[in-house]
Amino acid sequence: MEKMSRRDLLKMSMVGASALALGSINSNADTIKSNEVKFDEEYDVVIIGTGFAGSMAALQALKRGLKVALIEKMGRAGGNSVINVGNMAVPNNAFQKAEGIKDSKELFIADCLKDGVNLNHVDLLSVIYDRANEAFEYLKSTVGVEFVPKCISASGHSIKRAVQVKVASGSGYIQPMHKMIEANPNAIIKKRTKFDEFVMEGDRVVGIKCRENYKFDSSLASDDLENTGGDVKYIKAKNGVILAAGGFSSDKWFRAQQVPYLKTNIETVSQPGATAGALLAAMDVGANPLLLSWIQLNPYTNPTEKGFGTSAVFTNHCSNDYGLSINPKTGKRFMNEHAGRKIKCDAIFKVMAEGANNDNYPVNICDQAAVDLNNPLYTSKGVESGSIKKFNTLEELAKAYNIPVEPFLKTVSDFNGYVKAEKDPEFGKPLKQADVHGIDVSKPPFYASLSTPKILYCMGGIQINEKAQVISRKTQKPIAGLYAAGEVTGGIQGGGRLGTMSMSDCMVFGMIAGENI
Amino acid sequence: MEKMSRRDLLKMSMVGASALALGSINSNADTIKSNEVKFDEEYDVVIIGTGFAGSMAALQALKRGLKVALIEKMGRAGGNSVINVGNMAVPNNAFQKAEGIKDSKELFIADCLKDGVNLNHVDLLSVIYDRANEAFEYLKSTVGVEFVPKCISASGHSIKRAVQVKVASGSGYIQPMHKMIEANPNAIIKKRTKFDEFVMEGDRVVGIKCRENYKFDSSLASDDLENTGGDVKYIKAKNGVILAAGGFSSDKWFRAQQVPYLKTNIETVSQPGATAGALLAAMDVGANPLLLSWIQLNPYTNPTEKGFGTSAVFTNHCSNDYGLSINPKTGKRFMNEHAGRKIKCDAIFKVMAEGANNDNYPVNICDQAAVDLNNPLYTSKGVESGSIKKFNTLEELAKAYNIPVEPFLKTVSDFNGYVKAEKDPEFGKPLKQADVHGIDVSKPPFYASLSTPKILYCMGGIQINEKAQVISRKTQKPIAGLYAAGEVTGGIQGGGRLGTMSMSDCMVFGMIAGENI
Repeated sequence: MEKMSRRDLLKMSMVGASALALGSINSNADTIKSNEVKFDEEYDVVIIGTGFAGSMAALQALKRGLKVALIEKMGRAGGNSVINVGNMAVPNNAFQKAEGIKDSKELFIADCLKDGVNLNHVDLLSVIYDRANEAFEYLKSTVGVEFVPKCISASGHSIKRAVQVKVASGSGYIQPMHKMIEANPNAIIKKRTKFDEFVMEGDRVVGIKCRENYKFDSSLASDDLENTGGDVKYIKAKNGVILAAGGFSSDKWFRAQQVPYLKTNIETVSQPGATAGALLAAMDVGANPLLLSWIQLNPYTNPTEKGFGTSAVFTNHCSNDYGLSINPKTGKRFMNEHAGRKIKCDAIFKVMAEGANNDNYPVNICDQAAVDLNNPLYTSKGVESGSIKKFNTLEELAKAYNIPVEPFLKTVSDFNGYVKAEKDPEFGKPLKQADVHGIDVSKPPFYASLSTPKILYCMGGIQINEKAQVISRKTQKPIAGLYAAGEVTGGIQGGGRLGTMSMSDCMVFGMIAGENI
Repeated sequence: MEKMSRRDLLKMSMVGASALALGSINSNADTIKSNEVKFDEEYDVVIIGTGFAGSMAALQALKRGLKVALIEKMGRAGGNSVINVGNMAVPNNAFQKAEGIKDSKELFIADCLKDGVNLNHVDLLSVIYDRANEAFEYLKSTVGVEFVPKCISASGHSIKRAVQVKVASGSGYIQPMHKMIEANPNAIIKKRTKFDEFVMEGDRVVGIKCRENYKFDSSLASDDLENTGGDVKYIKAKNGVILAAGGFSSDKWFRAQQVPYLKTNIETVSQPGATAGALLAAMDVGANPLLLSWIQLNPYTNPTEKGFGTSAVFTNHCSNDYGLSINPKTGKRFMNEHAGRKIKCDAIFKVMAEGANNDNYPVNICDQAAVDLNNPLYTSKGVESGSIKKFNTLEELAKAYNIPVEPFLKTVSDFNGYVKAEKDPEFGKPLKQADVHGIDVSKPPFYASLSTPKILYCMGGIQINEKAQVISRKTQKPIAGLYAAGEVTGGIQGGGRLGTMSMSDCMVFGMIAGENI
């Protein structure tokens, strides 16, 4: 390599400076250097994102006496976490033990690998198994999250190992967590503040470039690309930055490059701010993207509602856990209602395709007893909004959905026989759990709701290690000063996660990031 | 943002310069700027890689009178292409037409989407359909590649649409292509030259940093990371750079992060130089990585041989196309032998798992007529090396592989019945092609070979558009001066490509890159 003159060096730095001043988005991945900028503020820890992972990380960092800033792009904090159902897989939790259910790491990992199509990073799953109960106990005892005192089942898990929050919403966690954060003088939550890029000192992340007074514009094709609003600020992060920015389910361009069939008419349950910008910024500093083409769909959502809606949690827990799902063309079941999400979505798409306009939606049913076994809010909200229908007889139910009555009644009767025999010879639904009970035809009312897959969760994201450090795709080692947790990471749960596992992932690796940074 | 003084700017440029001088691998993705370096050489077009895609791109650029340098890391040119079997899917080729086989874009795309699990970028598949025959005619008429004058079937295609090279090896293309390149005074092939990074002018790729006199060291855990040998050179590319560097099948670290179960005991058929370095360099200038976690395995390779070996092409074309594949534990078939590769690998892994050491390998059989329907080299090489065995009776064959004789003979007889009826009720193997004929038990000898999946092809890579321009993940637009073709690109063929499609992809997009740059 030829040596450069002082003049060359100066010329080169001018180009760099003018590119920065323009503030335009470059196609290449050059980073901002700490000696190019003057920091406006300084904290020990800067956390991007205010959902489960970011909030948990903040609480752990605050416990250590660190000064923490949480950066939130949107006008309200909590991201997708506040529209989450609020259930969390916790192997070996107290309720599970009290109910005499024996869990094991082998079983937990085997369950996860099944819907993860064997693409999971098992060493990280193992960390979730080891530490989920600690996170749960902390949330319960220290944060004051209120749980229903029982262990529940969730899709894909071969035994009951999840806990559920009383208010049947992720806000049941986020509200007390944020209250605790806001009460701490060392913490600040900066809303309407858009994270743009990392600031580097050599190979170390030492801060961020962000924009305050940012107004996210969901009318733009890409807010990340087109929205130039807000006031640029540089924030120093003495210990480092924790990226907990969530997934990219609402990023129409980026998701459609990874999964082209998600281009057009498939809805998402995510909030509109779930774009790929933060993930791309991490890739610019060398983060290794894993499994970006694995985007999980939610098999429970209702085609007659927008977004997550009011019936999905009923369909998941009341109907699919305890009742059954029916193909309205045939009156028959068509899947193991307790299978993992990917398996169920694939089965539902096939059933839908029997309709002239891809609209032969499955009908998910259960009886009153199944409703009573769950949080009453799971059903009452949908009945109120009309997304869940209530019937006095199964015949009426069949008629309302154009289901052929005789085959349908035979299906219900057969299924009740399977429950009694504790064996589903048709689809292998696990029926040995004590309160799985079929449809008690003598005890009306009966409930029903339609379902169709909607985009739920980005399995892919950046690679982390057991300490929640972000791994460089180039050095194969941690990137100094950069941690990540939650949906922005990838690989842990492979190609598909089981129900209630996102929260375990967010809480455990958020906790670890906050402990280690 | 605060303004910086001249002194600040100078200080900043010094940091950049010293980092460059060290030549170490940074975890972050900063690029080299053209005004930081002095170019040692200058061409119109620089092409990274000398396999099918790079060679085809070179020929097209040379046709336009451009000065071209091809950069090859290894001591021999041709990459994985020279160890390829040499078959190419060419919709609407002359042989297909002469045989009265009607092809259509709809059928071609439907075939590809099936093994691609619907993740294909259909607009790019459409380009392959439109232009493969033009590439084939050019190779035949202008380059002088010699083809067997018939259309052949290949796994996953519902009709015959592939052509085969006479010498039964990709070298049948590479040798005449390189001869033509080397005869052109405007071209140079630089072997033992390692591409390291792109040189940028603003957002435009204007050259490369490389190292001459490089000795690839396959004994290193990661040659890209650890091998610091060679002499640094900067090469200017006036029109731009075409990346045709192939896949990362031999990159043990990178592939195992994307697909953790490929960590340990699964072999690859790729040459040892197939590492991720060039892909990572493209990601540093903003390329969008697609489908990196989709790594295709070859279902035909032999567990008793190293690498691709001598029997895989027999198993693929003689046995699986015309004969059948047997589970030696049961003597029965276990899959549609004409399904796509992913479906077959999954089926083979299940059969293998019936062995105590995961070693219940399928036995692939056919008769003499099937051998005669194919290039004789497909079988003679393996018979010579011992990877394919020859038997006078089916009973002898069964005995040699510990297959239960009676069930095996019944399987053969059943299969012959399916062939006659042109319908496979067990696995749906398409049996309407004229020369599918089962096993003629009256006409010995019979042939057999074992199979096990080995890593074959990286479906994932960087995104390109219909002009072979590399797309920026940040601007969603082409990166100026950067083109790509072949296995280093991703998305075109989704999660799994059909047999003979890699060459079509390489040749068509190599041609387009050379035309457009």
